Amino acid sequence: MAKADKNTLWSGRFSEATDAFVAQFSASEHFDRRLYREDIRGSKAHARMLAHQGVISQDDADAILEGLDAIAAEIEAGEFPWDPALEDVHMNIEARLTERIGEAGKRLHTGRSRNDQIATDIRLWLRTATDESIGLLRRFQAGLVDLAEREVDTIIPGFTHLQVAQPVSFGHHMMAWYEMLTRDEARLADARVRLNQMPLGSAALAGTTFNIDRGMTCEALAFDAPTRNSLDAVSDRDFAIEFASTAALVMTHLSRMAEELVLWASPLTGFIELPDRFCTGSSIMPQKKNPDVAELVRGKSARVHGALHTLLTLMKGQALAYNRDNQEDKEPLFDAADALRDSLRAFADMVPAMTVNRDRTRAAAREGFATATDLADYLVRKGVAFRDAHAIVGQAVAAGVASGRDLADMPLAELQGFSALIEADVYEVLTLEGSVAARDHFGGTAPAQVRARIAEARARLAED
Amino acid sequence: MAKADKNTLWSGRFSEATDAFVAQFSASEHFDRRLYREDIRGSKAHARMLAHQGVISQDDADAILEGLDAIAAEIEAGEFPWDPALEDVHMNIEARLTERIGEAGKRLHTGRSRNDQIATDIRLWLRTATDESIGLLRRFQAGLVDLAEREVDTIIPGFTHLQVAQPVSFGHHMMAWYEMLTRDEARLADARVRLNQMPLGSAALAGTTFNIDRGMTCEALAFDAPTRNSLDAVSDRDFAIEFASTAALVMTHLSRMAEELVLWASPLTGFIELPDRFCTGSSIMPQKKNPDVAELVRGKSARVHGALHTLLTLMKGQALAYNRDNQEDKEPLFDAADALRDSLRAFADMVPAMTVNRDRTRAAAREGFATATDLADYLVRKGVAFRDAHAIVGQAVAAGVASGRDLADMPLAELQGFSALIEADVYEVLTLEGSVAARDHFGGTAPAQVRARIAEARARLAED
Amino acid sequence: MAKADKNTLWSGRFSEATDAFVAQFSASEHFDRRLYREDIRGSKAHARMLAHQGVISQDDADAILEGLDAIAAEIEAGEFPWDPALEDVHMNIEARLTERIGEAGKRLHTGRSRNDQIATDIRLWLRTATDESIGLLRRFQAGLVDLAEREVDTIIPGFTHLQVAQPVSFGHHMMAWYEMLTRDEARLADARVRLNQMPLGSAALAGTTFNIDRGMTCEALAFDAPTRNSLDAVSDRDFAIEFASTAALVMTHLSRMAEELVLWASPLTGFIELPDRFCTGSSIMPQKKNPDVAELVRGKSARVHGALHTLLTLMKGQALAYNRDNQEDKEPLFDAADALRDSLRAFADMVPAMTVNRDRTRAAAREGFATATDLADYLVRKGVAFRDAHAIVGQAVAAGVASGRDLADMPLAELQGFSALIEADVYEVLTLEGSVAARDHFGGTAPAQVRARIAEARARLAED
Amino acid sequence: MAKADKNTLWSGRFSEATDAFVAQFSASEHFDRRLYREDIRGSKAHARMLAHQGVISQDDADAILEGLDAIAAEIEAGEFPWDPALEDVHMNIEARLTERIGEAGKRLHTGRSRNDQIATDIRLWLRTATDESIGLLRRFQAGLVDLAEREVDTIIPGFTHLQVAQPVSFGHHMMAWYEMLTRDEARLADARVRLNQMPLGSAALAGTTFNIDRGMTCEALAFDAPTRNSLDAVSDRDFAIEFASTAALVMTHLSRMAEELVLWASPLTGFIELPDRFCTGSSIMPQKKNPDVAELVRGKSARVHGALHTLLTLMKGQALAYNRDNQEDKEPLFDAADALRDSLRAFADMVPAMTVNRDRTRAAAREGFATATDLADYLVRKGVAFRDAHAIVGQAVAAGVASGRDLADMPLAELQGFSALIEADVYEVLTLEGSVAARDHFGGTAPAQVRARIAEARARLAED
Repeated sequence: MAKADKNTLWSGRFSEATDAFVAQFSASEHFDRRLYREDIRGSKAHARMLAHQGVISQDDADAILEGLDAIAAEIEAGEFPWDPALEDVHMNIEARLTERIGEAGKRLHTGRSRNDQIATDIRLWLRTATDESIGLLRRFQAGLVDLAEREVDTIIPGFTHLQVAQPVSFGHHMMAWYEMLTRDEARLADARVRLNQMPLGSAALAGTTFNIDRGMTCEALAFDAPTRNSLDAVSDRDFAIEFASTAALVMTHLSRMAEELVLWASPLTGFIELPDRFCTGSSIMPQKKNPDVAELVRGKSARVHGALHTLLTLMKGQALAYNRDNQEDKEPLFDAADALRDSLRAFADMVPAMTVNRDRTRAAAREGFATATDLADYLVRKGVAFRDAHAIVGQAVAAGVASGRDLADMPLAELQGFSALIEADVYEVLTLEGSVAARDHFGGTAPAQVRARIAEARARLAED
Repeated sequence: MAKADKNTLWSGRFSEATDAFVAQFSASEHFDRRLYREDIRGSKAHARMLAHQGVISQDDADAILEGLDAIAAEIEAGEFPWDPALEDVHMNIEARLTERIGEAGKRLHTGRSRNDQIATDIRLWLRTATDESIGLLRRFQAGLVDLAEREVDTIIPGFTHLQVAQPVSFGHHMMAWYEMLTRDEARLADARVRLNQMPLGSAALAGTTFNIDRGMTCEALAFDAPTRNSLDAVSDRDFAIEFASTAALVMTHLSRMAEELVLWASPLTGFIELPDRFCTGSSIMPQKKNPDVAELVRGKSARVHGALHTLLTLMKGQALAYNRDNQEDKEPLFDAADALRDSLRAFADMVPAMTVNRDRTRAAAREGFATATDLADYLVRKGVAFRDAHAIVGQAVAAGVASGRDLADMPLAELQGFSALIEADVYEVLTLEGSVAARDHFGGTAPAQVRARIAEARARLAED
Repeated sequence: MAKADKNTLWSGRFSEATDAFVAQFSASEHFDRRLYREDIRGSKAHARMLAHQGVISQDDADAILEGLDAIAAEIEAGEFPWDPALEDVHMNIEARLTERIGEAGKRLHTGRSRNDQIATDIRLWLRTATDESIGLLRRFQAGLVDLAEREVDTIIPGFTHLQVAQPVSFGHHMMAWYEMLTRDEARLADARVRLNQMPLGSAALAGTTFNIDRGMTCEALAFDAPTRNSLDAVSDRDFAIEFASTAALVMTHLSRMAEELVLWASPLTGFIELPDRFCTGSSIMPQKKNPDVAELVRGKSARVHGALHTLLTLMKGQALAYNRDNQEDKEPLFDAADALRDSLRAFADMVPAMTVNRDRTRAAAREGFATATDLADYLVRKGVAFRDAHAIVGQAVAAGVASGRDLADMPLAELQGFSALIEADVYEVLTLEGSVAARDHFGGTAPAQVRARIAEARARLAED
Repeated sequence: MAKADKNTLWSGRFSEATDAFVAQFSASEHFDRRLYREDIRGSKAHARMLAHQGVISQDDADAILEGLDAIAAEIEAGEFPWDPALEDVHMNIEARLTERIGEAGKRLHTGRSRNDQIATDIRLWLRTATDESIGLLRRFQAGLVDLAEREVDTIIPGFTHLQVAQPVSFGHHMMAWYEMLTRDEARLADARVRLNQMPLGSAALAGTTFNIDRGMTCEALAFDAPTRNSLDAVSDRDFAIEFASTAALVMTHLSRMAEELVLWASPLTGFIELPDRFCTGSSIMPQKKNPDVAELVRGKSARVHGALHTLLTLMKGQALAYNRDNQEDKEPLFDAADALRDSLRAFADMVPAMTVNRDRTRAAAREGFATATDLADYLVRKGVAFRDAHAIVGQAVAAGVASGRDLADMPLAELQGFSALIEADVYEVLTLEGSVAARDHFGGTAPAQVRARIAEARARLAED
């Protein structure tokens, strides 16, 4: 009975009240109430437009605007009577509005439907979430650039296959992370363009018979343009999928950084120290200082991948136009956006605060014949064909492995045993610093190059 | 300061309090508090065992048991002072225990770690969730069997490629759904065997130096056996992945049923009527009666697929033993289990309550030359090779398409134009009832066969 | 022995030949040979640059260029001696080059590594695949616009929840599909910008000690710019993930169209007829004409989703820089690109060739009270508040359901029983044509609006 | 024309030949020809049954059997004229059969359909693949047990969060891997039970009108039972999903081992040495010896996850019964099965062949205060509450960190400064061997326990 009263928004043709479990099963109010700001903002723009177009009276519009503001205040104050029986955020707010202002409240839904209303709400919400993430991405980039500059002359082993490959500048490594984030930022910006289109006015699926002005609501809500097809507009969730795709890629990058942070904070390498305030301990092992933040971020990447998967699967094979399946879009989207924001914030705070144990990184670079390529290149400059030089150095390395010595530790005579072209100047190319400095071209690890990239990055970050 | 006090469970070696955002970022109390029953049950079993083994005194154990019961009561009453600063459900309960009973509370964690504790808690929780889902699966199966029996003589078109293929018994179609669920039930039962192993006693990762008796806790917690390797036990999340895999398959089945329910409830077919109490309306279109439950279940299948994806990705490439990434296992697992349970319940309630519009299903089966195969089989029985019979009937169908008539509507002379072997008795095999009844072998759609399968299903469901 | 000879490209330090199964397990030649054109193009640009910079002699460069052209011809002619023992496309070509031209061939690999080489090859390949897909997207869009124009006045039921909601223009529906594809095209174009950066010169991971000119190779290969960080450049697979994300979204759109095509081609609706040449039959049911192309495209969407999943999972948690895991990037990428291209082509060919059964679509729109919203809007224009109008029409619909009549079939007196405001002019708003024409605003389904959108689409497609 | 001839298997009602691109797009022969053995085996059983039941003559059956054997021989010899225009493996073989034996060949398809035929073929194929993987799993387990026994007394740091936690037996670590594989084996065995049901006889979707004997074919093909519902049988792909789920979990386990192998083979730890024959080198860095096999297996885990995702997405929301989407099931299934088999084989070969650098693993365990928990336990045994003991040891560790000394390196007096209860016997519990040996309970790392587990494992592996 009470139920029936509540459902006056659509129950006209129904002969039977909704099953109690079904009511709970299908309610979305417990998660979509999060959209109340956007819902009210959209309703206000809609009401103003309806009055301007003469669809409702100005008095009604004024009552609606005032009523919605009062409701916003109630919600902010935690005093709003949320009721799951009213299904969702839209009907909760509309029912409360009518309760407060009477008849006029029943006119608000003229010329729209929940289908275009929710599509508008989510886009508004996601626009804010996108902007917030872009801001955090930039803050993190700035932190990385600072760190890169600080450690530009620090030498760390560059790995391939987690084998020591060639020495690199620690700053260069940080700028690799920075590069990943610049692509992420560009992707979010591109997605935002497609996001910022206004579905309002598409009504249920076909548009409305009222004389609406979509340009007016579009401007009021700061959208770039109204959507061009009503059927598409109410059923499209591309923006959610595209955001989740982009978030999944950002999180993949953060997971890669996390993997390295965990490794570098391990006593196995001792490359870095993370401040205590970003670590936690063990309930049983008193000595533990765990890089939890990095591990959690790595774990959260899985969650964002999952959200993307959910959204793609959700939309696969859906006939037009709106289907109730789409109600399931919000929780994964919210979850992905929250995980992205929190992870970016955590890394933007923590990563630049790490301390590099420069002795440890340098020492590690000395293991594993990191300058073997430099010797090969040396031979090439002496006229040996690269493949032959590679083979010669391979034999020298095999001898080094067998006797436990780096190439730099072999006497000249021994080296000359591998190639008569080797001379005393070879030892210069076998130093870590010499090796790093020699990769002196655009994109290379030479400190001079890294400094140039840092300067460009600073300029870019300052621009916008 | 307060912070430092709270973190006495592990902060001994730390020189700096946890960053406020990090504390919030890494806390799990807001979702893992759901495990409080299992956590307390596990702690009680552990305390009793420690006392029995002389690791703690009986007095301490008694105080712990009493304290834990009091805490359980507090939680049930909504009066427990949950504190995110205490990270998780374990430390919330342990801290509260010590607050209530003093010194003895500090002895509870002897010989265990949060690593084996959480693994034990989740397994206990998931065991209950598994049993609940098995129960719902069986209830749904029973409902399908009833429906199948009611509609065993109802004819509906059997589709391949959504083209009318051959007429089938509606009851046979329901028993196809039943079959899917029997496999699901078996999978859950198989997974439960691997789930029901006890990690407690594995401590952090290597076992403990105390003289514990794992057999005793195992029995108290109704596990089948203690796990055999401590490193594996604290890092293993197979049970979560296996549950999610199984749930993803159940949900895939439900999504297939949902697809058909939505189609059958559409005026395009008008095959079934769902009770009003399982449907909802539109905020703008007064005539709408939407099969929301089916659509939501179809949508929720995406979510459970996503949870599986998250869990697999989470574990990929993780070095042993416990890593903090694993904290991210609980939310997808909870979400998958909830979605599974609710979807099963919704369908177990709704599906058997549908009404079949037998005239509509029968009429649809008459379109699309559903008995063409029967004609081909007829010719084969007259000695025509199957491939030739197929070709002959193909020509008859082409003629029917051109003139808008079913095979049964063609005069004998016309049919004989395609094959001289066709005689007057052909019209018997061209009836829907004749077609259905003729598929009279194990697994076929003949009503007699369907009734036999129903009887077997009833027997199976009655067994356990 | 032969083995050892072949592996001279890296086997210097090894004491033992590669295990036969491992050689096969790790070989990529059977799938990456597909990149031979790009590999040769990249090598030629690299050789020219090396000569220009004085790193190799002009004679060597000339020999290399000539040798590579000869090899390309061999491959095109199917006469190239591919050898899995040579691991991959790069080493196959390089070994053959040295075989053909001797010493000079051994100089080609100076200043590069397979790590930057493969990254360059894939980007070149994917650039072509991207451009091809954009072309097909545009062809498909053009076909849809033609079809939309042809059927702009055809009425089809607009569905929500697969319930008849409101009548719409068939052309409007086609333009909804068109809209999806415009977003897809924009996404591919955005991704192409990030793709078109040149990794060559990053060498193994740190750059090279040779005096290379990356600007020169960049221009020769038509890249927009060289990549800015060598560590990032050799380990980055963002472009593959971003392409797969975009492809997954295109395929999701195609799966939605496929779902509708299958439904519309079913005798359940009879909305459309697909030409025989795009359908197949059954091996057992002679009457079947199956919409296989649509089903296969729907199925292939799953495959592209899977490829995206594979690529994201592959990169998750990978420490810098290149790891062999990345060899697994190519097959899913190739597969996604092939499935995308073939599906686009199939739909671009088939969809515009369908015939619409206008009587069937119109008849279906008359069922299900498709103009109920129009009656509610009519009442609103008479001064009734929208919510009250919705409730009134709900009652009229309930009466219609009970008596099996559409609103348009009820006599005026009966309608007036629901609201005294209803007058004789109501029947105009209850017609399908009136309903469609009344949604006459930007984005609405009124034929005039659809024609305007078609004109804009034609202009856009003509532009480029 | 030739085209039309070829398609006589279903083209009767068609007025137009298949579009050339569509023919290629929809053909499956290029991948499903892999099922030829199973297809022929199934056809032979079917033909024998048809003759036994009097549906075809014994002479026809004899001709068919002989013809199929000849075709099998042709295929094995690489002389079979595969023709994509004949769509799939079934029609290729049937058409060739009729070519060879005439009329009788046209009778083979009596009482079956490609729908039940393909379902039978895949199940047969997957049964073999499952058995093969179980065999490899067992071989790998046996290798791990041998390795565990060899290294049972070797000490390696046990990690949590990649921080040194407590020392463990290397053998214990290997037995953790063994445990994962035992669960995998059980899952494959469980899945096999559900797999081994025979769909043959379900025909297109409803069964057949011929007097077939499914029990006879079931026995001939060594299935456990015929499937119980024809609609379900032709549309069910659970077995593929369940196999892929299980394979995804096995691969997840292998990816975890791979992660550790890569880390352990890195000069960062130097824990193990992999034989040269399982490693490869670099095209540019002569010193590299890369653990490629482990990396590839880790990478392949992503691919199997992707295959699972594809299969689940493929089946989501599919209406009964067979849809052409299902043709897309084979490639991901084949790919998952191949990747699983090859990865298992590679690890079964390589892992037991590794050499452990016992000095390096032991040295690493000495870093990171690995015996801190032992000190806490020591204090508990002296009467200190565990939480207090934990706090005391935390302070001792903090002092150790500050001064760069392990607990075992602190003089007694200094230790007593943290707790007066510490006595000279403390040094025994601070040794690595003491620590490991003290975890002497079922599942713990004490060598005695590990040896017991090894003995049990050997017994289990010997059993079957």
